[in-house]
Amino acid sequence: MTDLLTDPAAAAREAAHGRPRPALGIIDCDVHNAVPNDAALRPYLPARWRDHMDHVGSRTFSPYENGFVYPKVGPGGGSRADAWPPSGALPGSDLPFMREQLLDRFGIDRAILNCLYRAAEQRHEEYGAALARAVNEWQVEHWLEQDARLRASITVTFESPEPAAAEIRRAAGHPGFVQVLLFPRTLAPLGRRRYWPIYEAAQECGLPVGIHFASTTGAPITSAGWPSFYIEDHTSMSVAFQAQVTSLILEGVFDRFPQLTVVLIEGGFAWVPPLMWRLDHLYHRLGAEVPDLQRLPSEYLRDRVRITTQPIEEPERPADLLDLIDEIGRDILMFSTDYPHWDFDHPQRAFQTKLPPDVHTRIMRGNALDCYALGT
Amino acid sequence: MTDLLTDPAAAAREAAHGRPRPALGIIDCDVHNAVPNDAALRPYLPARWRDHMDHVGSRTFSPYENGFVYPKVGPGGGSRADAWPPSGALPGSDLPFMREQLLDRFGIDRAILNCLYRAAEQRHEEYGAALARAVNEWQVEHWLEQDARLRASITVTFESPEPAAAEIRRAAGHPGFVQVLLFPRTLAPLGRRRYWPIYEAAQECGLPVGIHFASTTGAPITSAGWPSFYIEDHTSMSVAFQAQVTSLILEGVFDRFPQLTVVLIEGGFAWVPPLMWRLDHLYHRLGAEVPDLQRLPSEYLRDRVRITTQPIEEPERPADLLDLIDEIGRDILMFSTDYPHWDFDHPQRAFQTKLPPDVHTRIMRGNALDCYALGT
Repeated sequence: MTDLLTDPAAAAREAAHGRPRPALGIIDCDVHNAVPNDAALRPYLPARWRDHMDHVGSRTFSPYENGFVYPKVGPGGGSRADAWPPSGALPGSDLPFMREQLLDRFGIDRAILNCLYRAAEQRHEEYGAALARAVNEWQVEHWLEQDARLRASITVTFESPEPAAAEIRRAAGHPGFVQVLLFPRTLAPLGRRRYWPIYEAAQECGLPVGIHFASTTGAPITSAGWPSFYIEDHTSMSVAFQAQVTSLILEGVFDRFPQLTVVLIEGGFAWVPPLMWRLDHLYHRLGAEVPDLQRLPSEYLRDRVRITTQPIEEPERPADLLDLIDEIGRDILMFSTDYPHWDFDHPQRAFQTKLPPDVHTRIMRGNALDCYALGT
Repeated sequence: MTDLLTDPAAAAREAAHGRPRPALGIIDCDVHNAVPNDAALRPYLPARWRDHMDHVGSRTFSPYENGFVYPKVGPGGGSRADAWPPSGALPGSDLPFMREQLLDRFGIDRAILNCLYRAAEQRHEEYGAALARAVNEWQVEHWLEQDARLRASITVTFESPEPAAAEIRRAAGHPGFVQVLLFPRTLAPLGRRRYWPIYEAAQECGLPVGIHFASTTGAPITSAGWPSFYIEDHTSMSVAFQAQVTSLILEGVFDRFPQLTVVLIEGGFAWVPPLMWRLDHLYHRLGAEVPDLQRLPSEYLRDRVRITTQPIEEPERPADLLDLIDEIGRDILMFSTDYPHWDFDHPQRAFQTKLPPDVHTRIMRGNALDCYALGT
């Protein structure tokens, strides 16, 4: 797909025809606000952890030098080349510029901010928890209270579930927080018992748990070792989502927490039918292994999992995309742009084929309204 | 799918109607002959390694106690309950019984034996290489020279590629060996340079490289840690195939070795279209990362990768299986039973929907004849 926003000729053609304003108010389920630097979090840290930041600083699981898994696509290392604000600050760190490039330009009614600050990867669990809380306080002051269109996800130290649960209960007091944010690479599969306190707190607060493309555990990203290319990293990250959904279903998380919804963010969705066929097939043959399960694996996914659209895998034959959406079901997918990252999906051009109007409306808005408490 | 061979009532109904004899000669691309025990390999080991076997024995990467990743399905731990020979030996270790249950019963014209003895997981590389050679010699004497319908794969220590290449060149002298056998879980992705000597030797000998469901590296099977259930292991193993195909394509293995064919055995195939869509899409956006690639990722797969059928993922709607085979292409899939394992596919009942006759013939026989040098 041509990336019109980073293609000056296409942008000029668009401008010549007037700014497009869709009739449909869009809900963008994946937008990234960036913590510009450690200093931005200092005001929200107790003295104990400001000292730690000064004298020790960040120590994480990450084998990536600067904490980024992105390739060097343009100067932003993962961001659209045009997403750097005039101030020179990090892409996604400047709200007025985000309004101009995203919210105003495309008539976004609600944007859900997923701040990718990786507090959960801190090896010092208490420091990680302090950072997570600081990120959330910073989000309230600099984002949620600055623009009524914004909502945000709660940053938590998911490898340290009790502090994470406490932070969920604390942060959920602000109505701008509409989701708990996890990442798909974890030290154990997310269905396992150690993570249940997070789901308990999320369900209690009426928040879905989102899992967003990102993160590392220090272990190789494939079950066959470290790959060479970012294309492999990108593909393997999508696979981590599949392992997590499988674990959540088979461990009975959806039975244990009957009000819990899980949102998969930026993990793709073409893999959904094949995975569901496989799991249902294995369940028919090996169901004795998971006798507590109440339903077919695919039924849990249909009822309790929602998936954001970007990045949309593009079938060779455009009609196959319609078949794919038909197989997955019209209530599952929720539109997202991934602004300001390099693989941004343009709200009017994300789908390479025309969707039936009712399906389009569900994806651009309706499914998100059902999933999140977005206010009026 | 009902497993008719382990269902006595169904087997009785079948017997009452006479033994079915398909008009089409079947080529079964995945049958397992088992080394019954260490003693069977002793005659093929030099004194140095017989001593090692007696005094040290096996030391592997495997975290599984008995080296098996299978669940306890029946007493065979991975095999059909009825696949134990009357002698009490391991399933797949008794040729007369294999003739009765598989070759004669279903009119199999050629069966490709994939012996899953995991010499490559031996931590002692020289001992592993000696075991691999012993397994191949044992296969010649006890299988290839006992039944003209049998062909076999060469067991190699793929984590020790130079000895593996030497064993390929040695064993390929026997016309019964038609493939080199690797497993999908490796210490590094199979596209990487360290494995190229294997491909060079295979190409030189005119042998495809097969990758068969099995194995461990000692690391977690998912990129999110160790899962609880065999259903997750099974699904994750299929994912390892995807990482390997991606690596082989992106590292340019198919350009470097232009006569090489890779066969994916027991990894499923419903994942092929979504993976190809994703890789082609990323290649269009991030091709700068792999500038030496000559073609679209999906084109390499179509031309150079073949895939065995068992286990067939079963779509909810049977017609979706036809769409899937249509998307993958009629020249890719090759029939396999996986005898004597628990998830055996019955030659007449493997597909839940009727395939077009030309496609059926390609899958049951034609594609294998094009892929392997099977003799007349």
